[in-house]
Amino acid sequence: MPGRNVSTAVIKRLPRYYRYLGDLIDRGVTRISSGELSEKMNITASQIRQDFNNFGCFGQQGYGYNVESLYGEITKILCLEKSYKLIIIGAGNIGQALVNYSGFQKRGFQVVALFDTNPKLVGLSINGIEVHDIDGLEDFLENNEVNIAVLAVPASSTVKIAQRLYAKKVKGIWNFSNTDIHAPEDVFVENVHLTDSLMTLVYGLNDISN
Amino acid sequence: MPGRNVSTAVIKRLPRYYRYLGDLIDRGVTRISSGELSEKMNITASQIRQDFNNFGCFGQQGYGYNVESLYGEITKILCLEKSYKLIIIGAGNIGQALVNYSGFQKRGFQVVALFDTNPKLVGLSINGIEVHDIDGLEDFLENNEVNIAVLAVPASSTVKIAQRLYAKKVKGIWNFSNTDIHAPEDVFVENVHLTDSLMTLVYGLNDISN
Repeated sequence: MPGRNVSTAVIKRLPRYYRYLGDLIDRGVTRISSGELSEKMNITASQIRQDFNNFGCFGQQGYGYNVESLYGEITKILCLEKSYKLIIIGAGNIGQALVNYSGFQKRGFQVVALFDTNPKLVGLSINGIEVHDIDGLEDFLENNEVNIAVLAVPASSTVKIAQRLYAKKVKGIWNFSNTDIHAPEDVFVENVHLTDSLMTLVYGLNDISN
Repeated sequence: MPGRNVSTAVIKRLPRYYRYLGDLIDRGVTRISSGELSEKMNITASQIRQDFNNFGCFGQQGYGYNVESLYGEITKILCLEKSYKLIIIGAGNIGQALVNYSGFQKRGFQVVALFDTNPKLVGLSINGIEVHDIDGLEDFLENNEVNIAVLAVPASSTVKIAQRLYAKKVKGIWNFSNTDIHAPEDVFVENVHLTDSLMTLVYGLNDISN
């Protein structure tokens, strides 16, 4: 598969390229130079050229990049041609915000179930998705394909829930809980630590004021 | 102020150290060695020692670190002794999840207002915080201290709202919208791009499966 040996630093920039190129396609732009993209994205033109060279020969001197081809290639590298089934564990604020967010559906991400311990929530349907009792997690995973589990539970329950997911061979975890998990090597964890992010903001804010 | 010339790489690790040290304090742990912390945090012990050396002499050979002092120093460096006033722009899924999240309040972050364009939301009170009409944004900022504005609006409105914030001298922006903003130099922006994060997860997930 192309791009599998692309460096981590490049990979980290791919979602942003994907987002920008998608915007250009929506606006009917068919080609763009590294210089134009550089101005929009605040990345140097040489960095952009270097990154895109990893994916093949999309640039042409004096013509720029073919937006559609480049977008297609990044889609492939990010494996966004497939669709993905998600469960969300924790039907609190973050869990509900995620299940209500229509943007995921558009990109091929389908939430198939919510789980919670709260009897007031279990059995409800949120944006058409049923809230299951967490006790039924293993049963659900045995009978349904699930690619990604979203952890939106309190820090204190995170590790235990994560272990139940590993045991049932869930390979992708999107962790919103305010704690880290140490997953087995064959599980990929992406963390969204909102309080860490807020603290980075506060540091930056004070740094700027000094 | 101590720590102001600490490198960006170290700064990025600080919120995590802060979180781990806070957990240790909650559990009554008074000292810890770099080796023990290394195991918990998945960072090498030598990296930890190097990072902590930036803040002063907290380690003692054969004794380890004084957890309380180290936590206190990181609190100071991150400027978390002060409290911060936030407004949230966009009272949709993410905006509501944030205003309902009690963790911020505990750490000295106070949401003072929500703003939205939707007449069905304007005038409501969510978790005790009033939803104002976005037309009143400038007026509110002239009459109230606001340190941080949270952008939880659709990508299409993000740039315009951001410009209104710059004009009123809001210096910290926590951007949850699915687009980047190019702020003036005296404004600090921290981005939480959830779809970028989800794409990184998908890439990692497929990388692991291959």
